[in-house]
Amino acid sequence: MEDTVTILKVKESILEDNDADAEVLRGTLKDEHTFYLNLMSSPGSGKTSLLKQTISRLKDRYAIGVMEADIDSDVDARAIASLGVKAIQIHTGGMCHLDADMSRQGLKEIGSKDLDLVVLENVGNLVCPAEFDTGAHKNAVILSVPEGDDKPLKYPLMFEKADAVIINKIDAMEVFDFSIEKAAQYIHMRHPDIPVFAVSAATGEGIDAWCRWLEEQIRGEQA
Amino acid sequence: MEDTVTILKVKESILEDNDADAEVLRGTLKDEHTFYLNLMSSPGSGKTSLLKQTISRLKDRYAIGVMEADIDSDVDARAIASLGVKAIQIHTGGMCHLDADMSRQGLKEIGSKDLDLVVLENVGNLVCPAEFDTGAHKNAVILSVPEGDDKPLKYPLMFEKADAVIINKIDAMEVFDFSIEKAAQYIHMRHPDIPVFAVSAATGEGIDAWCRWLEEQIRGEQA
Repeated sequence: MEDTVTILKVKESILEDNDADAEVLRGTLKDEHTFYLNLMSSPGSGKTSLLKQTISRLKDRYAIGVMEADIDSDVDARAIASLGVKAIQIHTGGMCHLDADMSRQGLKEIGSKDLDLVVLENVGNLVCPAEFDTGAHKNAVILSVPEGDDKPLKYPLMFEKADAVIINKIDAMEVFDFSIEKAAQYIHMRHPDIPVFAVSAATGEGIDAWCRWLEEQIRGEQA
Repeated sequence: MEDTVTILKVKESILEDNDADAEVLRGTLKDEHTFYLNLMSSPGSGKTSLLKQTISRLKDRYAIGVMEADIDSDVDARAIASLGVKAIQIHTGGMCHLDADMSRQGLKEIGSKDLDLVVLENVGNLVCPAEFDTGAHKNAVILSVPEGDDKPLKYPLMFEKADAVIINKIDAMEVFDFSIEKAAQYIHMRHPDIPVFAVSAATGEGIDAWCRWLEEQIRGEQA
């Protein structure tokens, strides 16, 4: 348990070809047997809450680190560090995305070599983060019920880039007009056949299925 | 009532000094007695729903136009046009913000000269839109209850730039751990004394107070 967390101010990359750099980073991490997950969503969709549920289920089997990207503040990193896993806060200095080199700065700081799983909690945003390959092995996107089932229509690139979508806050389904079927249909218009997990990070419902998928990805990358 | 809406693809500004350009635009609009409101929020916070409630209360007294900015899709503009007010869809071509010159392209297309109130529904995003002055007379930000009351801590610039904050989805207060007092406190850390309206765009609760404030701003600008 830590009272303070490391805050890393990342610098914008000077590399012109981020896609190539991301491929290099992905390969390096694979050689080191570190699985790198990029978790994206709107502000307030429950990234930190989902991570808490995920960490509590996986932390006995995997060495986990979390990089909390934020414009400012360190509230999320403190919440994660209190679970007893490695957590650092990455400040982007106003930028709304992270690229591969910024990822690399964070991974070095968190000591990814000694970790099985590193999760990047990206800046809360459905636009810019999707435009930059962070070097992650997989991208997961959270869509929360109060946001509405039409978001894959409005933010196509984010859902194109996703390898899995987690529909969070299903405990609030009664209050909001949200159809999981419709959401899944719109998601699959953007990226056919990717898994869609309906969960409540508040109650824990559906989290096991998401964790099973994540473990399969970790094992696949380490194989 | 229209079945189709105009979709305008705006081009990125070539002007270097957006702030100066925004001041020019603001002055032109004032001379034309057009009040220009920039409405911002996360995706799915209820911008379109709030606008529908607002339009139904004000459309008999003001000539209103709405510019729906979106990466893609025209679902919002169609929803607004069905209320019988002018609506156009602005496609930003992947960009997550609008600047003053992009605003100007939209205002020309919608015919702002003949309108008393033009609302820009900005791209759903708490980061980039705050970084660019659109030339609007006032900026309003929606924070929805499911997003959490800590958002002003995490997205400081958005709340600094706000002239009013609307806390939406208060009908969902029972499901979420959200304190209006805390949210207001955090908002006022960023921008002291700005009005905070607690509303439900679903039930209509609190919308009258927001509309009164908006009418005061329109009258102030036209005076």
